[in-house]
Amino acid sequence: MKRLALFGSTGSIGRQTLDVVARLNNFDIAVLTAHRNWELLAAQAQRWKPGWVALADSEYYRALKDALCGLVDCRIIVGENAAAQAAEEAGYDLALNGIVGVSGLLPSYYCLLRGIDLALANKESLVLAGGLLIELAKNRNTRIIPVDSEHSAIFQCLMGEQIESVWRIILTASGGPFRKRSLKEVRNAAPEEALAHPTWKMGDKITIDSATLMNKGFEVIEAYWLFGLPPERVEVRLHPVSIVHSMVQFNDGSLKAQLGKPDMRLPIQFALTYPQRSPVEYVNDEPVEWPHLEFQTVDFEQFPCLSAAYQALRLGGSAMPTLNGADEAAVERYLKRQLKFGQIAEVIYSTLEQHHIKPINSIDDALEADRWAREFVLNYKKVD
Amino acid sequence: MKRLALFGSTGSIGRQTLDVVARLNNFDIAVLTAHRNWELLAAQAQRWKPGWVALADSEYYRALKDALCGLVDCRIIVGENAAAQAAEEAGYDLALNGIVGVSGLLPSYYCLLRGIDLALANKESLVLAGGLLIELAKNRNTRIIPVDSEHSAIFQCLMGEQIESVWRIILTASGGPFRKRSLKEVRNAAPEEALAHPTWKMGDKITIDSATLMNKGFEVIEAYWLFGLPPERVEVRLHPVSIVHSMVQFNDGSLKAQLGKPDMRLPIQFALTYPQRSPVEYVNDEPVEWPHLEFQTVDFEQFPCLSAAYQALRLGGSAMPTLNGADEAAVERYLKRQLKFGQIAEVIYSTLEQHHIKPINSIDDALEADRWAREFVLNYKKVD
Repeated sequence: MKRLALFGSTGSIGRQTLDVVARLNNFDIAVLTAHRNWELLAAQAQRWKPGWVALADSEYYRALKDALCGLVDCRIIVGENAAAQAAEEAGYDLALNGIVGVSGLLPSYYCLLRGIDLALANKESLVLAGGLLIELAKNRNTRIIPVDSEHSAIFQCLMGEQIESVWRIILTASGGPFRKRSLKEVRNAAPEEALAHPTWKMGDKITIDSATLMNKGFEVIEAYWLFGLPPERVEVRLHPVSIVHSMVQFNDGSLKAQLGKPDMRLPIQFALTYPQRSPVEYVNDEPVEWPHLEFQTVDFEQFPCLSAAYQALRLGGSAMPTLNGADEAAVERYLKRQLKFGQIAEVIYSTLEQHHIKPINSIDDALEADRWAREFVLNYKKVD
Repeated sequence: MKRLALFGSTGSIGRQTLDVVARLNNFDIAVLTAHRNWELLAAQAQRWKPGWVALADSEYYRALKDALCGLVDCRIIVGENAAAQAAEEAGYDLALNGIVGVSGLLPSYYCLLRGIDLALANKESLVLAGGLLIELAKNRNTRIIPVDSEHSAIFQCLMGEQIESVWRIILTASGGPFRKRSLKEVRNAAPEEALAHPTWKMGDKITIDSATLMNKGFEVIEAYWLFGLPPERVEVRLHPVSIVHSMVQFNDGSLKAQLGKPDMRLPIQFALTYPQRSPVEYVNDEPVEWPHLEFQTVDFEQFPCLSAAYQALRLGGSAMPTLNGADEAAVERYLKRQLKFGQIAEVIYSTLEQHHIKPINSIDDALEADRWAREFVLNYKKVD
């Protein structure tokens, strides 16, 4: 039995990971971590009996402790650094990082530092400190296996191929709920509208990022770090039905795609079993049942957040963690109705403009740039 | 420079292969062979200066000889066995077999017997003697690299994967010109109609086979031999626009496809450069320009030739060369307007019914079964 550390176990990715683990039946769960949802965390811990349980929000320590009182050999830790501590100290053979947001960075870092393979769903790890983590993985001879459906698709298409043969990567984007509406039309769109994603069911932050296409912007940055291609070779095409999860075009013209009905359990399982595949009992994805597949170019004026991501990628260094911090804070304020939908991009551009680019030489450099951007956005007063 | 033996150089695959070779600029042409088109063969030989030139139809020996009188160090041979002799005796490092029909079998056989890698477009090699050739390639540690767009697609999707992880192969079929018409409606369809293929421009025999879907049936048999999956795991779906060249579905549910605008030069080049890919100057295939992609199930009653192929595959042994011989003769008679379109399938079924299945232990066994079926069809008198 392989020991899995699952960071962010109560979120969408975390819960689906436990479904997959139950099906695979060849993993022990060594670590479970959550942000605030102590009740689900406790229930998961009762079921999986991990050696470590970590909760970011220390307010619920007592409640969690009580809920787990019958559990033997289980270390319960709380606080902002609890997940990172578990990543650094617990015994495990593979980590899956499904944390949403900047809190995912340190668990990724410690996992790789220890030379342990990392199944990565936390986009922010690479957006904040892609250069450091990729270098670390290389030095430690450790794998980063992407869990995002797009990057898993590309990773699968690249199996047996040489990265030198790749001409371009085409990330597909559903376009989110506002695909057919102009920037002006969606300027005042309420969170309820932005949260109605047409094809994928995900957490709130990532769903808003899908409506602005910032999520795709982060994926462009992730792809840049994971696959080592220049920004202009990481392209995005709209593909509203989300069947083609992404494509790779090789320099001889050949295109390969990984495709199928949207189901995150597939890339999660692939990341857990790689380099093997593990049979699922009933494969019921049938191409004749798919809607017609089509692809469209992205209008960058309609989706300024995607442009901002390319800009941050080209600027390099601290521009990427700045982009991330600005977006996290802007989405938070949007969900609290302190910003309009259209202001998410505006505030991000303002943040990038005000920011002085520095190199990222350490995790602290990345966190510092992210923090600065977050504060900048939280203090951003402009309203129209 | 690698030395390439090109069997069937004046056909559609052969001509495109020479285009690709001209572009790649790292092959010498060692062998050129043709059936009857001595003029093009002579022009190709003048351009490529091969060591061997072979023409099946000995009637044109004098004309060919005269046309090549200035060529030094070029051995000119003619006759039905000329291509096979070149395959057996010429010096070359890689063969591409683009011959159409049963005459392709011996060149494939001698190439593999000598332990030389074979880029295979000649379907009949595997339909007639797949078991023998696959065994031979294995014993000689030699590669068979498929050139058919469908099998190239599958081959590309399987790179870096294990065949044990494959759940099924989905061969795509354009459906040919008669996709939307019932068996009854096309019963009397003239060759001109059947030759109007909607997406691929190919030779006459293979175009008629595309209209009956026998071509897809042969591809099912080829896939069976090339990839070693049971017949029920080699499926066919209609995909009228021919953008998705085929798909592989793995046992974890993941699907991979190789796709793009129909252009045979791509799988030809891939077969020549494998395991590398070689950049082409300008890759202009853009997904947003594709028509919408859709997939449909095949109505086996509408396409009885496809059913016949599955039947022959399940019967095994000499049923497959019998299928091939019957089809070649039936298509020949159809093109000569001696049979109606609807009779192609009928005569093939009659041939399979009358045939006594034997094991295929030698190339001669395969050729004998093919010959028997051919004669059976040529003597088939029934008209309605």
